[in-house]
Amino acid sequence: MSTITPVGERFGSELAGLATLVDSERPGWTRRALSEFDIAGRDYARTLMKQAGLATRVDGAGNVIGVLPGRLGGQEIMLGSHTDTVDGGGRFDGITGVLGAIEVVRLLRENNVRLDHDLVVVVFFNEEPNDFGFFCVGSRAMTGLVDRTTLAATDTSGRSLAAALPDSGIDPEAFLDARYDFSKVTAFLELHIEQGPELERLGKQIGVVETITGINHFKALFTGRQDHAGTTPMDVRADAGCAAAGTVLAVESIAESGTNTRGTSGQIQFTPEAVNVVSANASVEGEFRGPDGSWLHEAQRRLTDAAGENADKRGVRVEMEWTTDDAPVPLHEPITSTIAEVADDLGHSRATMFSGAGHDAGIIAAKTQVGMIFVPSQDGRSHCPEEFTELDDILPGIEVLLETVLRLDGAAPAGGPAASGGAARSGGAQSV
Amino acid sequence: MSTITPVGERFGSELAGLATLVDSERPGWTRRALSEFDIAGRDYARTLMKQAGLATRVDGAGNVIGVLPGRLGGQEIMLGSHTDTVDGGGRFDGITGVLGAIEVVRLLRENNVRLDHDLVVVVFFNEEPNDFGFFCVGSRAMTGLVDRTTLAATDTSGRSLAAALPDSGIDPEAFLDARYDFSKVTAFLELHIEQGPELERLGKQIGVVETITGINHFKALFTGRQDHAGTTPMDVRADAGCAAAGTVLAVESIAESGTNTRGTSGQIQFTPEAVNVVSANASVEGEFRGPDGSWLHEAQRRLTDAAGENADKRGVRVEMEWTTDDAPVPLHEPITSTIAEVADDLGHSRATMFSGAGHDAGIIAAKTQVGMIFVPSQDGRSHCPEEFTELDDILPGIEVLLETVLRLDGAAPAGGPAASGGAARSGGAQSV
Repeated sequence: MSTITPVGERFGSELAGLATLVDSERPGWTRRALSEFDIAGRDYARTLMKQAGLATRVDGAGNVIGVLPGRLGGQEIMLGSHTDTVDGGGRFDGITGVLGAIEVVRLLRENNVRLDHDLVVVVFFNEEPNDFGFFCVGSRAMTGLVDRTTLAATDTSGRSLAAALPDSGIDPEAFLDARYDFSKVTAFLELHIEQGPELERLGKQIGVVETITGINHFKALFTGRQDHAGTTPMDVRADAGCAAAGTVLAVESIAESGTNTRGTSGQIQFTPEAVNVVSANASVEGEFRGPDGSWLHEAQRRLTDAAGENADKRGVRVEMEWTTDDAPVPLHEPITSTIAEVADDLGHSRATMFSGAGHDAGIIAAKTQVGMIFVPSQDGRSHCPEEFTELDDILPGIEVLLETVLRLDGAAPAGGPAASGGAARSGGAQSV
Repeated sequence: MSTITPVGERFGSELAGLATLVDSERPGWTRRALSEFDIAGRDYARTLMKQAGLATRVDGAGNVIGVLPGRLGGQEIMLGSHTDTVDGGGRFDGITGVLGAIEVVRLLRENNVRLDHDLVVVVFFNEEPNDFGFFCVGSRAMTGLVDRTTLAATDTSGRSLAAALPDSGIDPEAFLDARYDFSKVTAFLELHIEQGPELERLGKQIGVVETITGINHFKALFTGRQDHAGTTPMDVRADAGCAAAGTVLAVESIAESGTNTRGTSGQIQFTPEAVNVVSANASVEGEFRGPDGSWLHEAQRRLTDAAGENADKRGVRVEMEWTTDDAPVPLHEPITSTIAEVADDLGHSRATMFSGAGHDAGIIAAKTQVGMIFVPSQDGRSHCPEEFTELDDILPGIEVLLETVLRLDGAAPAGGPAASGGAARSGGAQSV
């Protein structure tokens, strides 16, 4: 285990380095996709990838792709995560998986371990929700889930995604043409912070993810009638704001009724935003999440009904739009089992869990076998400046990631019989 | 009644003229105080005042004051209202009273009626709520209700009122020194649109206002904890947004429990405004109104409790600030009775009512006897582009205003015995 301490030091330095490339006018560590800071972040990661010995390129969708050629080649094991953040986000979400994957490459090379498979590291473009209503944009482009409708989506200023992409060096036509050939990808692994309190609560080091949550985003638009707040009796009002507030509470109570289910209203607006005017319009944007697809559809139905009731009883109209409807993604059992075995063999305590956050891994799961490795988040905090994981809690995740790569490389022949060096290489990994 | 039609024509033209001086980038007819459009609006009104024969000046607080000297002088009857609007407001709120007062001056002069009292017409500065948390700013300055605390108030950008006033030609020191000598003011009258549905519902032409509503503005700030919307279980959240939404519904239900009481939440904000983040902070701004001061204090107490309960049960902190606490203002019985008699004598149907809107008259009432005359609002709409009153519904209000001035002039000697011409002048008024 002699190289663990140096790993921690360089990982920590790189984490600190990436944390300097942020929008200083926003709280926390803000590096939103489609900003100049995100370009700088991906450039920084690409430099680290080159230093680690990867041959890098940027695909048509802004994904940074690095390749460490394998002994046999032809088949690939892919690792990846993202470097963009939410507004006011933290230093670990996504970044842990990118720096962890780069660390795996360095550890392999430093220990003179050559895989049979090509090892591919991807920094996915735009994982967090952007202003155009999309998230996991880079991984969706790689898996063929973007089209001209995606490009035509607009932000609140009316600007289209097609108009915004070139500022990040992405040509819209190339964006549509960025499909990756996943037929040669044996497995995809993503190391990530848990972003929730479960591992800490259970006192476990490694989370073995079985399912990635489904996510349904909604946008509710209420149309009432603008009136004077002093002269309009309560019983003749059509107060769009009250209908919206009632809907926010419905999101909360519906989510509280399920198991491992979440409901959040993250945005609300009353118009015209004057303290002495009954709101003519109101909007609420939010989401439901959960590991059970049928519960999610039931929640959709219940919220649509609740918004309708909140509107009807106030003489308000409501338009309910479900902007995303991503089903829960079960991850692949053979990979999940391997991760669990690796954790046990390395002596790292583990828990099987579901991911309440969406991940690029959930998108890639439609194309190849996918596994996710979680490390704990302090106080369960994430998407906030307080998001934190001790380096000592990240390193076990990197060790599990490395050893899982080695076992998958040995177990799944890369275009030929299992390499006889598998055991030796596995032993090599355990020595780092 | 031969001059009624011409009055309608010129009143309508002036109304249309003032309606051109608006912010074309905002909905409706927007001429907010402290904007260039408000300066233009008050300049326009001052020109009309000069044309009508008033000697005009602008006081230190931006109030335009015009004087028609009386036969005896020394004592004054004051008329006034405002020309500023809310964002997205209409063409009649305030403006009806300003143009109506100017019309009274013209009718007196056209009919060669000279009052004993000086007739003073005031276009009050900034009646509607400004971005610094104040309303009825001009009338408060005239009655000595502004101080350095007022000047130090800031808008959301952090700019102080003291910094904003000079752009409207108002020197902050002069603003503090704009007290008017109300000892010589016998009475104040304000003609205004009702802004509510009562007169229309009752089929009456003239509203005789007995009480101006009390208004309590509140600002509730909720502090929760920013968390990931997917990974944070419902039972460990501190969702400031849900606490705010519950408070909006409490405002509504408390207001519904009273008689002639109103409650409105006009502004709400969740922070950081991301669809997949549990809100760290939320704010709600709103108000209660009603004619009964004890109910208003009870409503304050109940809302403070409800906000606290909504916060407590979610682990959220709340700061409840009551930014204004204006008690209901009973208007003066002798004036109210005179207005009612005048309406009856002129054959205009009338209803006694309370004003759900605040008015400069409510501020001036602390200094002299005050009366208010309402004319109907179509569909009760106000503070919106649809705000409308037919000219035929405004003219009876101007007639009542004029005749009330004449009777008050005759009834309240202006520094001497009742002028013998009282009856003749009253007859003169009835002929216009």
